[in-house]
Amino acid sequence: MYNQYVDPNLKIFALNSNRALAEEIANFVGVELGKCSVKRFSDGEIQINIEESIRGCDVYVIQSTSSPVNDNLMELLIMIDALKRASARTVNLVIPYYGYARQDRKARAREPITAKLVANLLEKAGATRVITLDLHAPQIQGFFDIPIDHLMGVKILADYFKKKQFDDDIVIVSPDHGGVTRARKMAERMKAPIAIIDKRRPKPNVAEVMNIVGNIEGKIAILIDDIIDTAGTITLGANALVENGAKEVYACCTHPVLSGPAIDRIQNSNIRELVVTNSIALPEEKKIDKIVELSVAPLMGEAIIRVHEDQSVSMLFD
Amino acid sequence: MYNQYVDPNLKIFALNSNRALAEEIANFVGVELGKCSVKRFSDGEIQINIEESIRGCDVYVIQSTSSPVNDNLMELLIMIDALKRASARTVNLVIPYYGYARQDRKARAREPITAKLVANLLEKAGATRVITLDLHAPQIQGFFDIPIDHLMGVKILADYFKKKQFDDDIVIVSPDHGGVTRARKMAERMKAPIAIIDKRRPKPNVAEVMNIVGNIEGKIAILIDDIIDTAGTITLGANALVENGAKEVYACCTHPVLSGPAIDRIQNSNIRELVVTNSIALPEEKKIDKIVELSVAPLMGEAIIRVHEDQSVSMLFD
Amino acid sequence: MYNQYVDPNLKIFALNSNRALAEEIANFVGVELGKCSVKRFSDGEIQINIEESIRGCDVYVIQSTSSPVNDNLMELLIMIDALKRASARTVNLVIPYYGYARQDRKARAREPITAKLVANLLEKAGATRVITLDLHAPQIQGFFDIPIDHLMGVKILADYFKKKQFDDDIVIVSPDHGGVTRARKMAERMKAPIAIIDKRRPKPNVAEVMNIVGNIEGKIAILIDDIIDTAGTITLGANALVENGAKEVYACCTHPVLSGPAIDRIQNSNIRELVVTNSIALPEEKKIDKIVELSVAPLMGEAIIRVHEDQSVSMLFD
Amino acid sequence: MYNQYVDPNLKIFALNSNRALAEEIANFVGVELGKCSVKRFSDGEIQINIEESIRGCDVYVIQSTSSPVNDNLMELLIMIDALKRASARTVNLVIPYYGYARQDRKARAREPITAKLVANLLEKAGATRVITLDLHAPQIQGFFDIPIDHLMGVKILADYFKKKQFDDDIVIVSPDHGGVTRARKMAERMKAPIAIIDKRRPKPNVAEVMNIVGNIEGKIAILIDDIIDTAGTITLGANALVENGAKEVYACCTHPVLSGPAIDRIQNSNIRELVVTNSIALPEEKKIDKIVELSVAPLMGEAIIRVHEDQSVSMLFD
Amino acid sequence: MYNQYVDPNLKIFALNSNRALAEEIANFVGVELGKCSVKRFSDGEIQINIEESIRGCDVYVIQSTSSPVNDNLMELLIMIDALKRASARTVNLVIPYYGYARQDRKARAREPITAKLVANLLEKAGATRVITLDLHAPQIQGFFDIPIDHLMGVKILADYFKKKQFDDDIVIVSPDHGGVTRARKMAERMKAPIAIIDKRRPKPNVAEVMNIVGNIEGKIAILIDDIIDTAGTITLGANALVENGAKEVYACCTHPVLSGPAIDRIQNSNIRELVVTNSIALPEEKKIDKIVELSVAPLMGEAIIRVHEDQSVSMLFD
Amino acid sequence: MYNQYVDPNLKIFALNSNRALAEEIANFVGVELGKCSVKRFSDGEIQINIEESIRGCDVYVIQSTSSPVNDNLMELLIMIDALKRASARTVNLVIPYYGYARQDRKARAREPITAKLVANLLEKAGATRVITLDLHAPQIQGFFDIPIDHLMGVKILADYFKKKQFDDDIVIVSPDHGGVTRARKMAERMKAPIAIIDKRRPKPNVAEVMNIVGNIEGKIAILIDDIIDTAGTITLGANALVENGAKEVYACCTHPVLSGPAIDRIQNSNIRELVVTNSIALPEEKKIDKIVELSVAPLMGEAIIRVHEDQSVSMLFD
Repeated sequence: MYNQYVDPNLKIFALNSNRALAEEIANFVGVELGKCSVKRFSDGEIQINIEESIRGCDVYVIQSTSSPVNDNLMELLIMIDALKRASARTVNLVIPYYGYARQDRKARAREPITAKLVANLLEKAGATRVITLDLHAPQIQGFFDIPIDHLMGVKILADYFKKKQFDDDIVIVSPDHGGVTRARKMAERMKAPIAIIDKRRPKPNVAEVMNIVGNIEGKIAILIDDIIDTAGTITLGANALVENGAKEVYACCTHPVLSGPAIDRIQNSNIRELVVTNSIALPEEKKIDKIVELSVAPLMGEAIIRVHEDQSVSMLFD
Repeated sequence: MYNQYVDPNLKIFALNSNRALAEEIANFVGVELGKCSVKRFSDGEIQINIEESIRGCDVYVIQSTSSPVNDNLMELLIMIDALKRASARTVNLVIPYYGYARQDRKARAREPITAKLVANLLEKAGATRVITLDLHAPQIQGFFDIPIDHLMGVKILADYFKKKQFDDDIVIVSPDHGGVTRARKMAERMKAPIAIIDKRRPKPNVAEVMNIVGNIEGKIAILIDDIIDTAGTITLGANALVENGAKEVYACCTHPVLSGPAIDRIQNSNIRELVVTNSIALPEEKKIDKIVELSVAPLMGEAIIRVHEDQSVSMLFD
Repeated sequence: MYNQYVDPNLKIFALNSNRALAEEIANFVGVELGKCSVKRFSDGEIQINIEESIRGCDVYVIQSTSSPVNDNLMELLIMIDALKRASARTVNLVIPYYGYARQDRKARAREPITAKLVANLLEKAGATRVITLDLHAPQIQGFFDIPIDHLMGVKILADYFKKKQFDDDIVIVSPDHGGVTRARKMAERMKAPIAIIDKRRPKPNVAEVMNIVGNIEGKIAILIDDIIDTAGTITLGANALVENGAKEVYACCTHPVLSGPAIDRIQNSNIRELVVTNSIALPEEKKIDKIVELSVAPLMGEAIIRVHEDQSVSMLFD
Repeated sequence: MYNQYVDPNLKIFALNSNRALAEEIANFVGVELGKCSVKRFSDGEIQINIEESIRGCDVYVIQSTSSPVNDNLMELLIMIDALKRASARTVNLVIPYYGYARQDRKARAREPITAKLVANLLEKAGATRVITLDLHAPQIQGFFDIPIDHLMGVKILADYFKKKQFDDDIVIVSPDHGGVTRARKMAERMKAPIAIIDKRRPKPNVAEVMNIVGNIEGKIAILIDDIIDTAGTITLGANALVENGAKEVYACCTHPVLSGPAIDRIQNSNIRELVVTNSIALPEEKKIDKIVELSVAPLMGEAIIRVHEDQSVSMLFD
Repeated sequence: MYNQYVDPNLKIFALNSNRALAEEIANFVGVELGKCSVKRFSDGEIQINIEESIRGCDVYVIQSTSSPVNDNLMELLIMIDALKRASARTVNLVIPYYGYARQDRKARAREPITAKLVANLLEKAGATRVITLDLHAPQIQGFFDIPIDHLMGVKILADYFKKKQFDDDIVIVSPDHGGVTRARKMAERMKAPIAIIDKRRPKPNVAEVMNIVGNIEGKIAILIDDIIDTAGTITLGANALVENGAKEVYACCTHPVLSGPAIDRIQNSNIRELVVTNSIALPEEKKIDKIVELSVAPLMGEAIIRVHEDQSVSMLFD
Repeated sequence: MYNQYVDPNLKIFALNSNRALAEEIANFVGVELGKCSVKRFSDGEIQINIEESIRGCDVYVIQSTSSPVNDNLMELLIMIDALKRASARTVNLVIPYYGYARQDRKARAREPITAKLVANLLEKAGATRVITLDLHAPQIQGFFDIPIDHLMGVKILADYFKKKQFDDDIVIVSPDHGGVTRARKMAERMKAPIAIIDKRRPKPNVAEVMNIVGNIEGKIAILIDDIIDTAGTITLGANALVENGAKEVYACCTHPVLSGPAIDRIQNSNIRELVVTNSIALPEEKKIDKIVELSVAPLMGEAIIRVHEDQSVSMLFD
């Protein structure tokens, strides 16, 4: 934790998605959050007033494009426009959770690639840099032509589980075939083997089964994903793990979207503990006992300081 | 009304802001609305599926960026992205109500110019033409570098009042000093004089008064604005007109935003009738007796046909 | 007035439209004008030689795009190209009068939007900022995507009239319905009511009359416009004011274009005094006794210093 | 196979990477390859002469950016420039193998994202569409803002194995954790389970082992990858499969890069048959008996025809 | 000469630089010039009214950017803006004389490259193609990224001299070292040798002399340049040729700028005949007996037809 | 030669084309070359690892795009991408030899303008400045919109010959009509006359002859060109000079491409000495006795220092 940061040209502004995290980051860096009000007019249009001069400053805007995603994204775009026109020297976006990331390719005919659209919109509005965390696909970095610093949350999650010092063997489990690389990275840090849950239909007109590829019997299974949204896959996976002999099941993810039936499903599942970060602000009603929240503020704050001081950020990429 | 339109390359798609108007426009043109679903995922992200091939087609997308403005705008941007990637020949936006239009200049320090930002975003996403109606400031046309056909609703409103064949003298009243040119255009069509409501504070620490500039005594006053939002200005103006001797007060506008206390204020005001267009869909609870809704579907439909057939659209500009 | 300005990286260059104002601004800032020659070849092509190194400097180029507008605009574009290629750090345009500003929308079919075209050309050439004064429409700010500082001349004009300490009531008059907002701003500063001259044709085939909307009887009327070009509207308006009982008529504007019959019309009108700024250089033959010229050099100079030093410019926006 | 294609505006040109495939595609479509010479000057610079008029034509250029990748890429860029300047109506790139695709994200500090760079270069040069096959990551579609038709080779490979009508159970094996999704797609078509080869180091200072996740005992294993380059992973994997009890091992991939020791390794491995496509031309010395080459010409040719005729291409995406 | 051209989508518009040539070209093509008025307001700003619909048309705008170059260039830029906004399908510029072409490189420090600036401005405004004639440097083609058809006037000039059937030997002379390639091309068509006038200072503080490199004695010398501006070089060269034994001197150029003292100098020189094209309109006072004017209308008209019909234009490039 | 350069933000990186020159330049400036590895993968794809942080630095990348031109160009483009994404403050390209420069215009129908394409690619990748030497055509400067410092090698070559203090008269000879301006510049420095070799075919079906325009008899002839590639023109020219009476023939050029038969031709020609610069690295087998190599390192190094310190570079332009 730093004391008062010395360079007055570094300014941090928070929009509405995750003010608690922004406060924590600003505190870590050692600055007050910049003064601005971000409100809605009666008809829903966003009104932004930046209430201090930012001419010639390096401005960092903290905003997750989590739900309500369209409002949060438009807040960010309008803020960028305001900062650019108010002569900020650089406009650096700190986006702990990058929404629409799962629409990153045309999986079917005539689909949009919304994650690229969003990147284009942010650049067009005037962003000059992005700092983000655990993108759904690392290729999204290439959707930008401005510099992007892509931080990784796996260390934070792994350190938490390491501190538990489990007595039993553990296995890191990917809840689907798209997440195996992520599970592999966690497994390396935990020095553990991996398993995959392979949801498939054995024959036509037969129900889908959760097939476990890999050995989990008698082990403590840690499911890992980048995003947990409706929590269907992860809770069905947890149940399958127990049915197939896992001793205990933990789950973790960087981005707790937790929409719709997610909280109920987790509550009723075999998951003993769900470990998440505060990249997305959890409303009080979602803060159930099973959920443990770890802070990414030191990680993001350190990145801001290093970017501002032209120091290497690379050690934060792992 | 046209029968079945012959060219299969003209396709009209509706998004969610104003499906009734879109149906009416498609009906006027003589086509079925294109098949697509525009839904929300559980976490609020927009999901668009275009369910018929539009390769090589001239696509017209109908969407007002009215409330919820950010959702409607993102629907439009994502749809443009999907159409562009699916090889539409041209992507023509039909935007009966262009939201954020009042943020069209920096009125104070460090304000965004959101109306320009929106224009930039639409162009960046891949729009190739815009057809719109009664922009808050006509200069917004210049925010675009793609062709924009700017239709005018004043004829529709004036025709309605002409049909009433009032016995008394009428006067067209601008509710503030920014709208005098609009009032002048209406006055020309109605062959009537104008007046202006000039809200001002006569001395410091004295309440603001609604001063009437121009002669309204004993006349039927028709207040005109482009947008009626919270209806404060227009209802206070109406009351001031009556207090200053107007015989009767009507009001009209192209875009009935009618947010917050608007309906109550109108209900309780001296306004006898508020005439609006369907550029913004009115929900049932706002359809009070005092409000008369005129359709812009024939105007927008005619514009689509003329644009598609490379005929002059200029007669629709007055 | 500043003494020698300390930072050698601030350089001010003058082109040919208004060298006197440029000298005055440079003097205010405390620098010598940069050395460059801007000439014509025998065939009319512009030849620019920048005669000192400007590598890494923040260059401010002062040029009104007043008459001869095309030559002045091309001088500016060519100068920007030369500065960009000569490695200026920033290229800041100081444009006291922005020509072509009245072509800011398509008023009729197939019209250009030349004010936007000019903005696009300046950005394409390489401008990085614009400082300008009293744009014909404030929305022109949105024609740019680079930062633009939009200064206001109304304070300069109002201060002049306040010093006169008129004994009689005054009224601020807009010469047409498009300028009412401008009149309103002046009226606020002067604590006076407003009136509008509403030119209209009472019946078909009857001559247009100058109708006065608002009370002017026995008052000192101050007509205000942003631009006075051929002076037809303002002088007819002045005469109508006197005919309708105004005691005395003054006129003022920021930008004295004064083309064609303007000087004769003003000389022969009921206008007692026309107050203008030096945003456009008045040639000797136009400097008649009735015209009072106020300087915008301190305003523009202060803006340059504040921009260069990353101080807030906002107090100059009112 | 089509006879002579009727529209003379469809032109297909081949560059130097894979002329045999280009001939086959042109033959499928029913056109002669366009006349052009693509040579090297003595100093290695590329010289392109297009020897027939292509004004107003829809031109399809066939070029894999396979080895020598830089020469092949520059041929393509220069060809695009020539076509654009020669007034082609559209410039459609048919890139069966998209080189540099594995550099699709910053995996470590200060890495380029060359796959995005290449996309930017192709767009900047003037390409208006891309047709490609089995991109290393499907997100590379989002590196482009022009339409991209992403064809899939899995059907071609699966059909080949289906025709073999194996008597034994089969299992589809991903050679690493990054390719599980690809294996899953193949498995669906083959109605088979999957397994993953998980290369890892059990303890520090102990040799890496090829751990098999999933059940392969007694089965026919089909290894699948998108690209086989030096063939290290695939051949070590094949050996591990046999050691762990697989009955027989086949391998397949879309893009046979086969550089360096690849051919030797395959020859000496437990792989019974390696099935590839002709997206990359195999030189004679690489055409060993173990390698079976399937043609993508009908797939790419069908895509060209459908694109040209504005028919849906979506059935070729699976 | 063609009769009435059949396709109504081909429209030709003339601006003010060279209306006679435009009429001749339109006549050659077989169309009426499009209706538009291009005037000046009282303050010098250009006002363009396009008086017929051009939606979906291929528009060809004929304008030399000759003197007054800045006015003519701005006319062209504004016309492009108007056409683009009025939904022209393509905006094709026919620029017989491309002004500012001699500012095509930085010859000294801090010079602009105005010829590139102009290209950038034309593209930014919305031009989609350029047809031009004898650019001062052929590299200016590369200043554009849109297609450019670069026509050559040398055939027209050479044909004129061939018809004279001189009895004596002729020699083609370049008036300076920069024009030798041009002289070479003429010489090839005339089957004649070349000579160069090499202006140089033999020793310091000694007057510059016109040195003749090559053999001209007793021959008919034909001086050729692309542009004759003030005619100093060409007339001094002609005199030097006579002094050094040339029998007779002719001169020719494509672009008769003829500014300042040019006509007097030519009149008083040893040049027997100066042959020019009508790429630049000669005012009556410059049409002296010594000057022969050849028309480029058939060449430019043929190019327009071929471009419009997607036929090869290449035979017009020599 | 400077000692250790003080500003750590100036970083110089060398790619693979000319590492010896890069070392020499870095030594001149007083810095170590930046650490990076630029290798090929087994399949020929380029792999770049920048092995030190360059955040916020002004990076100068030294690379001639000489043979293998496509590899060298791609190295440069990929390096720019990596530097941009790694947050370099500026990316300055030092390109002693700019390949593809001879493809600078459409000389025939449907030719590319590759020199412009390359400029577009470099800008698109993210270059912010170019420093180069003796471009084939100075107009290539205008192919860029970023600043370009165009250094001239003629002084280096002329100084070498001046030191020889020839006793006989010298004449500077252009080997073709395109290079006369270059010869003129050398001649001015050497205070010598010029001559031109005019290769032409006297009559159809007669062999081309090397005609000498100008007087060379008994003189020492110095042939000058910018690039010597296959050395056909220069060696035939040298022989023709001797046959026509030149006493001795020297040749010089800035860029020794020397491809194909060049070395043999030079060895066997009448050229006594060929003087070149090290803009292109000569491999050992080309370093024959007749070739003298002069270093451009001090010139390029001085330019880097001056650019970095915002000093005028103009004295290096002559």
